[in-house]
Amino acid sequence: MTKPDMRAMQEAQQRWDSVAKPLGSLGKLEEMIVRIAGIQRTPEISLSPRCALIFCADHGVVEEGVSQSGSNVTALVARSIAEGNANINLMAENTDVFAVDMGMANPLPHPALIDRRVMSGTNNMCKCPAMSREQALKALQAGSDLVGEMARRGYKLVATGEMGIGNTTAASAVACALLGLPAEQMTGRGAGLSDEGLRRKISAIERALMRSKPDPADPVGVLAAVGGLEIAGMAGAFLGGMRHGIPVVIDGVISAVSALIAMRIDPDCAACMLASHVSREPAGKILLDELGLSPVLHADMALGEGTGAVMLFPLLEAAARVYFGTHTFTDLGMAAYTPQGGSE
Amino acid sequence: MTKPDMRAMQEAQQRWDSVAKPLGSLGKLEEMIVRIAGIQRTPEISLSPRCALIFCADHGVVEEGVSQSGSNVTALVARSIAEGNANINLMAENTDVFAVDMGMANPLPHPALIDRRVMSGTNNMCKCPAMSREQALKALQAGSDLVGEMARRGYKLVATGEMGIGNTTAASAVACALLGLPAEQMTGRGAGLSDEGLRRKISAIERALMRSKPDPADPVGVLAAVGGLEIAGMAGAFLGGMRHGIPVVIDGVISAVSALIAMRIDPDCAACMLASHVSREPAGKILLDELGLSPVLHADMALGEGTGAVMLFPLLEAAARVYFGTHTFTDLGMAAYTPQGGSE
Repeated sequence: MTKPDMRAMQEAQQRWDSVAKPLGSLGKLEEMIVRIAGIQRTPEISLSPRCALIFCADHGVVEEGVSQSGSNVTALVARSIAEGNANINLMAENTDVFAVDMGMANPLPHPALIDRRVMSGTNNMCKCPAMSREQALKALQAGSDLVGEMARRGYKLVATGEMGIGNTTAASAVACALLGLPAEQMTGRGAGLSDEGLRRKISAIERALMRSKPDPADPVGVLAAVGGLEIAGMAGAFLGGMRHGIPVVIDGVISAVSALIAMRIDPDCAACMLASHVSREPAGKILLDELGLSPVLHADMALGEGTGAVMLFPLLEAAARVYFGTHTFTDLGMAAYTPQGGSE
Repeated sequence: MTKPDMRAMQEAQQRWDSVAKPLGSLGKLEEMIVRIAGIQRTPEISLSPRCALIFCADHGVVEEGVSQSGSNVTALVARSIAEGNANINLMAENTDVFAVDMGMANPLPHPALIDRRVMSGTNNMCKCPAMSREQALKALQAGSDLVGEMARRGYKLVATGEMGIGNTTAASAVACALLGLPAEQMTGRGAGLSDEGLRRKISAIERALMRSKPDPADPVGVLAAVGGLEIAGMAGAFLGGMRHGIPVVIDGVISAVSALIAMRIDPDCAACMLASHVSREPAGKILLDELGLSPVLHADMALGEGTGAVMLFPLLEAAARVYFGTHTFTDLGMAAYTPQGGSE
């Protein structure tokens, strides 16, 4: 693990302050560019080439009726992502999108699918641990290694995303376990659950937590008890981000749960994360607050597939054009704004 | 004035509901595309060609020491925008950017500057009305006509923006007058004002309001008493938006004050507006709430020049790629999500 390069961050901040605009007036976007400079260890930040890793897996807990759809939909969407036809492929611009099989119910032979299968879907967490500790560690390692591989292939920035029917149930259970909050507070309607479905979902989470009583101080144990393979893969990706000097973008609630696991495994890891959007799922804001991150997008999105994460990229690109612009106070023939100075 | 086309909006909503994704899962972006369909009167919405109109003007109130910079900076930045070198030009992609002189202190002969000068800067609102009622009406008309001209030139979408040293002071005064709120609550540090500068700014606003006692039921009177020429021009642009079937994007606080004037002149006009970001200036959220709009960007930006407004465009473009995508449930071989149905 390496920490952000403070000198690169200072140089990035100095560059921002020389641009002909009120100090700090690009707000969170300036802060994110500075953060990227720290992670990439240079003020000459790169936003491309970049990729989105969409971690796909299935969940034994769907047996409990927590979802209208079945694991066949995970496979359909994963194939669609691999073929370049899913929502994420349409929304991501100048971003290579990869579907990663972390453990779908059935193998899906497709040349464009990255195979990191740990098991064929998790077990039903209401009846037994979702996975073993070894499987959780294997999935974490796979996510981290994959970011390392992407770094070696030249990618400078990674977005996370997921597809997995049942995964909002697992994510809520992990969040409840790590934060000590009740299931009602952390559980939403996912893709549009009925009142009855929501009650079943909350009940499943409560029973799984009651059965497993996971120790919040043991994030890997929580992951094994009530987590998911795509959740573990994404947590690994965040851990890999700092290891390999790659900023990793959080997507929605499930991705934020993964980020929290990563931060609980290694607190330094939070410095490599970028927040994108806060979803309409109730746990969204709670998780980002816990991570100490403030998202720029408040669009009430809840699509998954990494679609919120990739929306950050055009905003960063626009900010970077100003950051790299040669449009300084000197060029314009005007005095620089000073902190606590004038006003428009 | 025309109202949005409900049928086009219904058809746009139906198209969203046929896309293979959880219902409504692109949140506010779906709502905005539907709104654009209503304004453009067709579900075959167009996001381009588009332009940003940056209204520039000067303010007599700078005499009161409310700003570190003088009107020479308005001219420098206006010229920089006209020449394509300012922050807004760097940040706007696939968007034609025009600087519009609504009344800078001095004429700035430049072939790319659109001349709609009403007067050479406003008067000092602490001593007399910023402008006459006739001048306010002339500036409103100029803004509305300019959007009509842009519509005839083929532009489908317009972003507003402004440049004018002293204009946060005028905008706060207008907001106070229209909303009946105290100057302290509506006044921020603009481009980075000191405590003393902030006190001078609040005092200037209070004195101007005390002197003029504008009637909140008379938005044109408020504009004349304590407004600005770029504020009037932008208000006119919003009025022109509905008249000419062009969605007009609100930028930051000054633009939102203009939008509020437009809505007070014609309540129907609000239907043609799109919110982009909420700035870090204190009045930002209050104004957008009053307009009934919910911005997608929360980036603590306060740059001006329309930079927040144009950041909405890549987000709308990403949503439109899904909207126009042929990626339906049927294509994917899966059942559609139903309202109150299942969950991921």
